[in-house]
Amino acid sequence: MSEPIGRHRWVIAEGYIPPQSTGPAPQLVSHETACILNTGDEKAHVVVTIYYSNREPGGPYRVEVPPRRTLHLRFNDLSDPEPIATDTDYASVLESDVPIVVQHSRLDSRQAELALLTTMAFPAD
Amino acid sequence: MSEPIGRHRWVIAEGYIPPQSTGPAPQLVSHETACILNTGDEKAHVVVTIYYSNREPGGPYRVEVPPRRTLHLRFNDLSDPEPIATDTDYASVLESDVPIVVQHSRLDSRQAELALLTTMAFPAD
Amino acid sequence: MSEPIGRHRWVIAEGYIPPQSTGPAPQLVSHETACILNTGDEKAHVVVTIYYSNREPGGPYRVEVPPRRTLHLRFNDLSDPEPIATDTDYASVLESDVPIVVQHSRLDSRQAELALLTTMAFPAD
Amino acid sequence: MSEPIGRHRWVIAEGYIPPQSTGPAPQLVSHETACILNTGDEKAHVVVTIYYSNREPGGPYRVEVPPRRTLHLRFNDLSDPEPIATDTDYASVLESDVPIVVQHSRLDSRQAELALLTTMAFPAD
Repeated sequence: MSEPIGRHRWVIAEGYIPPQSTGPAPQLVSHETACILNTGDEKAHVVVTIYYSNREPGGPYRVEVPPRRTLHLRFNDLSDPEPIATDTDYASVLESDVPIVVQHSRLDSRQAELALLTTMAFPAD
Repeated sequence: MSEPIGRHRWVIAEGYIPPQSTGPAPQLVSHETACILNTGDEKAHVVVTIYYSNREPGGPYRVEVPPRRTLHLRFNDLSDPEPIATDTDYASVLESDVPIVVQHSRLDSRQAELALLTTMAFPAD
Repeated sequence: MSEPIGRHRWVIAEGYIPPQSTGPAPQLVSHETACILNTGDEKAHVVVTIYYSNREPGGPYRVEVPPRRTLHLRFNDLSDPEPIATDTDYASVLESDVPIVVQHSRLDSRQAELALLTTMAFPAD
Repeated sequence: MSEPIGRHRWVIAEGYIPPQSTGPAPQLVSHETACILNTGDEKAHVVVTIYYSNREPGGPYRVEVPPRRTLHLRFNDLSDPEPIATDTDYASVLESDVPIVVQHSRLDSRQAELALLTTMAFPAD
């Protein structure tokens, strides 16, 4: 048996999908990621809400993380109910029915040499 | 109804606006950002104080974040009561009347290829 | 006598070892690191578990950090019971019998100019 | 009167001063920094201890941060009781007599294009 670790709600205040990329796909396509870890024995049902600067929030987006698995969710891949526009400021809240841990990262390959950033998300429960 | 998430006071100890940039404006202008998320139903009134290494603090700078919105505040854009000098070490404290979440990031394009950094700010209440 | 500082369990939700490198080894080989600090007077016995997106967790990997020492553990170097594949999403949990502090970082030298990221791991006890 | 914000003890588990640099000094010299903010009305007396992988800890290094000031302390500049060697893994603990906030960052200019990283330090009291 594996113990569930973490919190139920996480916040990422920074969000931005660069509009261009250089280098081979899919590894070096510019992307914004929420790395989610579910260490427990039950599937995690995660609801993602996207906040914008100039319109009402988007979502809910629904993703699942199987027991004892990690999901490196690319925001670029979210499509239902709508894709997230590139070159647009946003922020996100992730809510799960079981404890998870969330880390935010971005690979920016707009220019010839990539740049990276990461931070643990803010645990809000 | 949307629930307010976060804290009332956040600290960013690192601050530096690079004095040069390369690449097209405004996306690739070197900038220092406080990404602020207000998930609640009331407008957030945020007061920013800037601390320096060799003079008394600057500010207060006042910004507002509408309900259910994010504001990616570029420190470069602050002008009242005074702009923040480039190539100068500083730190910042953000205080809000409602709960918010704050994340710090920088894009540095002094050289031909950009560099990025980010971290969640320190929640201090 | 030196006081033990930190927590017993830390989580890093992001993990990825780039498949290529440029530049002289070992410093500029692409690597993923867990920086572990043991400030106390007793040796830290640390158990690392690796979570994947599409298979059961790997490990346990066992590492030791002597009293009053830091260990910058490269995930690339883990080999028993198995190496971690490059170009593969993973996440990790580190558990220690004495308090430690864990920080995550990566150097990515797939392209000619290196990129860096870091964050404090999530303390989960 | 200005309120002191933060904690008395902070940990940075990652530490590494790159042995080379490119670009004009001092801005683009590779450096490792502890950004310290003292928002209070009393001077902060900070003691820094450096932990290594293969020898006993170094220090104490003593630095002061005046009231309502930030100090972006370059580890490169520490010299008493001894400088920190470049190309060497280390970690650090900062202890202050008044509350402070500490953020860790590095500029790496070993290659032609700089790389950056940052994270809030771990508050350990």
